Amino acid sequence: MDLKPVVDAINNLSTRLDEYQKETRAELNLLKNSIVPPSPTFKIHQSNIPEPLNLEAEQQPLTKRSSFGNRETTAVSPAPKAGKSQYPDRIILTTYPGNSKVNPIPLNWGAEDAAARGPIVASRHPQSLPLRNAIGAHGGAYSIYRALAVAMGQLDANHKPNLVNTEPVFHVPPNKSWFDPMKIVSMDPWGHLVQEAFGDKLKEGLDLRPTIALTKAHMQLAEIESMVKDGSLKIDGKIVLDKKGQLMVTKGAVEPVWYLPGIAKRFGVDEISLRRALFEDTGGMYPELITRGDLKVFLPPIGGLSIYIFGPPAYISDPTKKLTVRVHDECNGSDVFGSDICTCRPYLIYGIAECVRQAQEGGVGLIVYFRKEGRALGEVTKYLVYNARKRAEGGDTAANYFLRTENVAGVKDMRFQATMPDVLHWLGIQKIDRMISMSNMKYDAIVGSGISILERVEIPPEMLPPDSQVEIDAKIASGYFSATSAKSAEPPNLENIKGRTWDDINH
Amino acid sequence: MDLKPVVDAINNLSTRLDEYQKETRAELNLLKNSIVPPSPTFKIHQSNIPEPLNLEAEQQPLTKRSSFGNRETTAVSPAPKAGKSQYPDRIILTTYPGNSKVNPIPLNWGAEDAAARGPIVASRHPQSLPLRNAIGAHGGAYSIYRALAVAMGQLDANHKPNLVNTEPVFHVPPNKSWFDPMKIVSMDPWGHLVQEAFGDKLKEGLDLRPTIALTKAHMQLAEIESMVKDGSLKIDGKIVLDKKGQLMVTKGAVEPVWYLPGIAKRFGVDEISLRRALFEDTGGMYPELITRGDLKVFLPPIGGLSIYIFGPPAYISDPTKKLTVRVHDECNGSDVFGSDICTCRPYLIYGIAECVRQAQEGGVGLIVYFRKEGRALGEVTKYLVYNARKRAEGGDTAANYFLRTENVAGVKDMRFQATMPDVLHWLGIQKIDRMISMSNMKYDAIVGSGISILERVEIPPEMLPPDSQVEIDAKIASGYFSATSAKSAEPPNLENIKGRTWDDINH
Repeated sequence: MDLKPVVDAINNLSTRLDEYQKETRAELNLLKNSIVPPSPTFKIHQSNIPEPLNLEAEQQPLTKRSSFGNRETTAVSPAPKAGKSQYPDRIILTTYPGNSKVNPIPLNWGAEDAAARGPIVASRHPQSLPLRNAIGAHGGAYSIYRALAVAMGQLDANHKPNLVNTEPVFHVPPNKSWFDPMKIVSMDPWGHLVQEAFGDKLKEGLDLRPTIALTKAHMQLAEIESMVKDGSLKIDGKIVLDKKGQLMVTKGAVEPVWYLPGIAKRFGVDEISLRRALFEDTGGMYPELITRGDLKVFLPPIGGLSIYIFGPPAYISDPTKKLTVRVHDECNGSDVFGSDICTCRPYLIYGIAECVRQAQEGGVGLIVYFRKEGRALGEVTKYLVYNARKRAEGGDTAANYFLRTENVAGVKDMRFQATMPDVLHWLGIQKIDRMISMSNMKYDAIVGSGISILERVEIPPEMLPPDSQVEIDAKIASGYFSATSAKSAEPPNLENIKGRTWDDINH
Repeated sequence: MDLKPVVDAINNLSTRLDEYQKETRAELNLLKNSIVPPSPTFKIHQSNIPEPLNLEAEQQPLTKRSSFGNRETTAVSPAPKAGKSQYPDRIILTTYPGNSKVNPIPLNWGAEDAAARGPIVASRHPQSLPLRNAIGAHGGAYSIYRALAVAMGQLDANHKPNLVNTEPVFHVPPNKSWFDPMKIVSMDPWGHLVQEAFGDKLKEGLDLRPTIALTKAHMQLAEIESMVKDGSLKIDGKIVLDKKGQLMVTKGAVEPVWYLPGIAKRFGVDEISLRRALFEDTGGMYPELITRGDLKVFLPPIGGLSIYIFGPPAYISDPTKKLTVRVHDECNGSDVFGSDICTCRPYLIYGIAECVRQAQEGGVGLIVYFRKEGRALGEVTKYLVYNARKRAEGGDTAANYFLRTENVAGVKDMRFQATMPDVLHWLGIQKIDRMISMSNMKYDAIVGSGISILERVEIPPEMLPPDSQVEIDAKIASGYFSATSAKSAEPPNLENIKGRTWDDINH
């Protein structure tokens, strides 16, 4: 009998087995170095999972931890308490457009009605998660606190906000700037209209959240009270209510919502480089910036802005009404604590007073307050720079004002005013009669975006705090507007403009 | 010869092999959908890479993109422009402890000297990146702005801060709380001493950055000026400098640095659940929270805190000197803009005045200001809640004060005061003579952490803004301290404590 076919069949099988073993062994080794295994320590009793979110159904752990090569078996702390986890068995480190159950609701940025534009979905609720169409989380940095609340069991991870009675107290209706996808790229123009525009989706159970809230208030400021007392502000009973200088104001808060193609264009970079930088320079925040090229919207964990309106909000977009505006970037040390090394709070108060006067004269005034502390360098960098300025050889001079910041931070200013005008376009502003600001960067951004500025108003010299001359002269020398300086015969010698030394303040 | 057994055996083997191939192929496909492969589309010309960072040396992409099941091949935008990228060829979406060239400098939290503790390295510089031992990035949320600056070419990604002359202007020396790893878990006690403690590492070229900056200033506040004018604050020439009420102050800024095991313990959760929540509820921020169980330090993109010291800083830790403290959580609407719906700025000013008086009497005063806007819910949620309060049936009552917040946010308060005392321990505080706060949550956290409070001081009723009675009564009913209320015969009927309606403010 010829056994050759039999032997060949056996050899054949043996070869198939060898090859398959090699192939799969290679794949498995690569995978083991990259995946996050559902560790046996992560398994939770099935009965404790309220709504299982097994994107990939019943799955056994791949292998025990000890077989994962040189990975420390003690690297991860012991298992969560059984029954405590609200999360599914499997951890998904990042998603891809082709994943099953990844089915983002299409977003058409700049579409002419809300339904066509689509709702922004950033929720992790089981029902909303597959439809998610934005990277990041609502509330920005405050999502970290929300995570703590969930971890501690104080917040139900599936809580949906009850938005009854939270609707805006004044109207900001659509205007044509909303329908140009490149015109408003750093906020969601529909952000205050979630209930109105997407009510049907809310009823279906989708977890949608406002990114803009509009309310009203009374303001009581000691500086304004003084102005009423000395007669420089008048009581009118509508804006300035009484002799304590109480002000009637409508106001709002706006969280950032970035349309990444628009942000990239605004800053003159390509979208891939933008995404790469956002991912790398934050130390690897949000890999979906890289893996979800299909998601064009990002909710960055940065502060947003607030608006304060004196007079009728409807006048803001009415070109027949006069509008006074101050755009102010946060400076906690001055705005709250009155530090005299800078002009921030005095200029803000002056801006409020001018807005009030404009409203009293039948116009309207607007303050926009951005959370960009210390030129978006943060307060630690700011104080490091103060120290370097005060200790510098030759003293704290206007000539070296920006150099000190560049030494520490690498740049002079990271506020990047290019996206600042978005909120003005959102409000329907077409022209600004009086711009209470000296900043050339703010001016250029606003005018460059298509809003005209008729008059620029500098801070009155008598409002400059004692140690802020250095700042103001350095800024004027670098391009800030000053009618006074433009008129003077000679520009000041910046080497001679010095701030107070620390010897002077060792009392 | 009967070959049937042989044939059966061969068929058996063949069947087994078929089944095994099916089983493992299915598992491998599932896994491939979850890992992060290096995509060929991200390849950049080798010549443009300053220092290649191939953590996994030469690695071929696992498969071409098209073989990843139903994943879209066009999901990712086109490759970056050649020559523009400062980043290496390969994008690493997350790292693992076993990766080559991942070699974190050991951190021994709570070690008794800086060298033993180790420096915190969060830099992406080629030289520092392999030694990185913290998740996140310096500057927290401001790293987003830094990323923009890098993307635009305005900031060299490899810029290292020049820290010359930035050193602290006053001493905060080590104390024993620094050496208990569970005592200070939300900031780096060595954060202001980077140059002093790790000078050798800086000289070696490691990119280290302070997370604390200490400076000094003059403060000019209108409210303080009024108090000097009416005689309730005296000029002494050291603290209160002149009749304008200028104040001499030393101050600092602190960025958050979280020791994750300590944070977990502080909040009563296990570390795995904490990491999972931080990753999931932020929408997938920092997968290294999951994959780098070996890295115990996290720089979260939340705001930090500022400190303001009146009188000699050295007195703060001196138990023979009297200390007055106010801990204040940010409320921009009041602290900056004077909204009268809450007590925030008035209470802050009162706290400053009491600190000044304590310093004038030979003691010292401390204000700590946390960036936890709107009880760490953020300003959008805050304004949504205002609207719901004002529109509620029955009006804006103290009885429903917290309910409105819970409706919208799911919780009353996300400030989680448990980590708040860390900065007090860092400063060496052992007792507080006068605590200018009514909050039971703050009191409990401080006393629970081992610092005694001798006297609690409530806000004087005459300082309460008109529309803030609702807030203050609701808080007292929920446990806030009030000597006045404790004495009164009957607690107020919270249904009857109502805020101003909006009809009242439609002028």
